[in-house]
Amino acid sequence: MSRILFSGMVLFTMANLSQAADPVVNDVVLGIHGGIGVDKKDMTPELEKDVRAGLRSALEAGHAKLKNGGTSLDAVEAAIRVMEDLPVFNAGKGAVFTNAGTNELDASIMEGKTKKAGAMAGVMTVKNPISGARAVMEKSKHVLLIGPGADAFAKQQGLEIVPPSYFSTEHRRKAIEEIWKREEEAKKRRSDAGEIPLELPRKKSEYGTVGAVSLDSAGNLAAGTSTGGMTNKMAGRVGDSPIIGAGTYADNEAAAISCTGHGEFFIRYSVSHEIVAQIKYRAVTAAAAAEDVINRQLKDAGGEGAAIVLDRSGKFTSAYNSEGLYRGCITRDGKIHVRVYEE
Amino acid sequence: MSRILFSGMVLFTMANLSQAADPVVNDVVLGIHGGIGVDKKDMTPELEKDVRAGLRSALEAGHAKLKNGGTSLDAVEAAIRVMEDLPVFNAGKGAVFTNAGTNELDASIMEGKTKKAGAMAGVMTVKNPISGARAVMEKSKHVLLIGPGADAFAKQQGLEIVPPSYFSTEHRRKAIEEIWKREEEAKKRRSDAGEIPLELPRKKSEYGTVGAVSLDSAGNLAAGTSTGGMTNKMAGRVGDSPIIGAGTYADNEAAAISCTGHGEFFIRYSVSHEIVAQIKYRAVTAAAAAEDVINRQLKDAGGEGAAIVLDRSGKFTSAYNSEGLYRGCITRDGKIHVRVYEE
Repeated sequence: MSRILFSGMVLFTMANLSQAADPVVNDVVLGIHGGIGVDKKDMTPELEKDVRAGLRSALEAGHAKLKNGGTSLDAVEAAIRVMEDLPVFNAGKGAVFTNAGTNELDASIMEGKTKKAGAMAGVMTVKNPISGARAVMEKSKHVLLIGPGADAFAKQQGLEIVPPSYFSTEHRRKAIEEIWKREEEAKKRRSDAGEIPLELPRKKSEYGTVGAVSLDSAGNLAAGTSTGGMTNKMAGRVGDSPIIGAGTYADNEAAAISCTGHGEFFIRYSVSHEIVAQIKYRAVTAAAAAEDVINRQLKDAGGEGAAIVLDRSGKFTSAYNSEGLYRGCITRDGKIHVRVYEE
Repeated sequence: MSRILFSGMVLFTMANLSQAADPVVNDVVLGIHGGIGVDKKDMTPELEKDVRAGLRSALEAGHAKLKNGGTSLDAVEAAIRVMEDLPVFNAGKGAVFTNAGTNELDASIMEGKTKKAGAMAGVMTVKNPISGARAVMEKSKHVLLIGPGADAFAKQQGLEIVPPSYFSTEHRRKAIEEIWKREEEAKKRRSDAGEIPLELPRKKSEYGTVGAVSLDSAGNLAAGTSTGGMTNKMAGRVGDSPIIGAGTYADNEAAAISCTGHGEFFIRYSVSHEIVAQIKYRAVTAAAAAEDVINRQLKDAGGEGAAIVLDRSGKFTSAYNSEGLYRGCITRDGKIHVRVYEE
């Protein structure tokens, strides 16, 4: 990628945007993603149909909130709740399994006007973790609650509580059992059995996330992210989804962002906040900032993933260095765009 | 604060630095903090003596590592371990209590060359959480482990494990009991007993943290932070200390940062990463960036706290909007500076 150095700032021309950058859609009030998804070779017509239908439902649910006078926060929460409830996405019902055979869920939400935020990590009984995150933001003095303390808070707040088994699906159960089988076989072949099992080649479907960004008629941005984490993650592992600045950020001066991908890289590069900082301090567009972080910084580091970005003027785009990204947006007048790969 | 707008960038002149900014010390190889500490009116000669002695010991321990060929990571870990072991600081032994009467510890560490990082949150048996964080960074594929999964990982890695009661001290036990007593009294006076108890006026001593930043002879920066969190925090509450980008960040292109204060604000403003981003994209000094974030952004939002910053050229400073900050640094040739209030 060629750059022009000028006055200590690095400027990118439009020509430098990679082919994987989506065209910018104007006048967007809600944008969402459903994770980087499966490789093209693993995609089936049935799965693609479910994904596209799920994205549409989520967009419609969020848009309905906005049409009825709801805020961007309401839209983000509503859209994410729809995706949490659909087993096709790795969040809420249908979350992946940890290496302990549990489902541990993470979510975060943030509003751009006040920079208030809330998040939950490692919850096991909150049906809709995004609503748990919102309760932390609005009903506690804290930003991040983890583990049983977070579950207890959600219950105390009257959120819907489910048994841990609610999140389990046949599909994810089979996926983890296949990984454990491969691990056992690998262990048998190696003498260094103490090695961390995550050395196994990853499948992209092993990490997924859902997220949403919204801009309401008052000009307020909001962002949210929810996930079941990485398949076979160590119990207690937390990725970027509940980390404000990593998986989620919203700042009315810049943009709202939600990320998905290999969470550890997104934490180390503070991806969401880095995109906001570039928009504010490098005076680049949201699309150029996202492109720089996802398709230069993360790509160079080997961190697979994506970000969706909605700026304060309603311009929506996504940047991804993966083969695909389940994504979509809806404009003020209700026009829906949904994409799965480069299209 | 007056600003000069120029080419889309906001420039600060030295005259804009507040009086609470420390002078920059050159040729620093290790800088540390021990939290924002108690108000001047609550300070006793004995406490101040303990704080200053503790800071000196930590600086000497870290400096010894560097003199013996250790890396900046080694120095950060060694300095923080000393402060974790001293009950006078709110980290490791002497951690504050949660509202459930437990001690839950958080820590993180990051190296600026590779942007690798590790963190633990909500651990209850790891004697030195900073070493736990380093083990996550170096011995796992993850960045953040929480709760019992983190404790189990530390044990598996052979780190020193202690019973949860190890962290408890008479001083902190009395502090939490006093708060619970005040809460009970407040509840009796109010009909709205369901209100969140954290509404009570806070004492600055209720949140403390220790942290370190270092630059080694290879030019590599590192940063680390460790805490017992906020007195009377909800069980499961996590502040900024284990959050990469909030309480801790290191980037060889800019600076190493460790923060302390009201953690929720530090998460919402991604304080550590914001300082790094301003250095890189606004082309301001590390001191000016820290000053902008701590004494403008956070101050305007009502977020009390501080950051220590060491840039890639060995310039060290701290910015704080609190009355004091336990802090110190040591230069390459072993000269120690220790401060408690504005001096």
